[in-house]
Amino acid sequence: MLVLGIDPGTAITGFGLVESRGGRACLVGYGVIRTEPQQGMAGRLLEIHNRIDRLIDIHGPEVLAIEELFFNRNAKTVISVGQARGVAVMTAARRGLRVYEYTPLQVKQAVVGYGNAAKHQVQAMVKAILGMEEKPRPDDAADALAVAICHVHSARLGTLGRV
Amino acid sequence: MLVLGIDPGTAITGFGLVESRGGRACLVGYGVIRTEPQQGMAGRLLEIHNRIDRLIDIHGPEVLAIEELFFNRNAKTVISVGQARGVAVMTAARRGLRVYEYTPLQVKQAVVGYGNAAKHQVQAMVKAILGMEEKPRPDDAADALAVAICHVHSARLGTLGRV
Repeated sequence: MLVLGIDPGTAITGFGLVESRGGRACLVGYGVIRTEPQQGMAGRLLEIHNRIDRLIDIHGPEVLAIEELFFNRNAKTVISVGQARGVAVMTAARRGLRVYEYTPLQVKQAVVGYGNAAKHQVQAMVKAILGMEEKPRPDDAADALAVAICHVHSARLGTLGRV
Repeated sequence: MLVLGIDPGTAITGFGLVESRGGRACLVGYGVIRTEPQQGMAGRLLEIHNRIDRLIDIHGPEVLAIEELFFNRNAKTVISVGQARGVAVMTAARRGLRVYEYTPLQVKQAVVGYGNAAKHQVQAMVKAILGMEEKPRPDDAADALAVAICHVHSARLGTLGRV
């Protein structure tokens, strides 16, 4: 099972591809989709759609894993992340991927083992779990890998967060 | 020029099709896209995409007009509307429509003539401008027609709100 993790944002959307092999999470790839303000909102959302669509073409993931959006940031961020998130979820559903969402607490518990882990601890565990030589950069890519790992571990434990 | 106005929402998305004939707004059609909670978020967003895509197939609008999303509602609403809005804007951009956004103030000024008009005044003016026998229902469809009319009037006056 190949899992596409997405950390959505209008300016920068992180992605991580993690394969579950016998319940173990193995790194396939990761990166970010960057867009520019001069593209306009419509152009930025279209680019996020096209790039995710292309990732699905190339890698053929069966599952999208994405964090639930909570209202704990400023309003502008919530609107901007919400729009990009809607595009990511719809793009995956349109291509037949199953979509699962997890709370930030679930991601931390699945990756680090406890829910109040700090960001750098999550990143260190992502690196260790996937056998990477360096911590994944930037943060958006690391977060996308973390939610993909969360899905692999949840699938193993039977605690899936289907949307 | 045929304008598709959209009032986005996860549960109910209003749409209105307004043709500009010599700078005058003429009604082509309106309605709502309803989705159900049991479809899940991914299924709901996919249905909104598919239905807007179908509207574009059938009517061939050249422009999407949509209200700017402001943070004046509760957080859950902003997230839910934001996701649907992202899907609507991206769907239109993907099909080559030009996307324009307007503030609620701009819509009221364009439709009623002043910015602090009440909802029922906007609806009465939408009915009058489009020569309808009844006020458009539900509110979501009326709001979608209002933002489409706003674009027609703004295009005439050269005050477009390109996204």
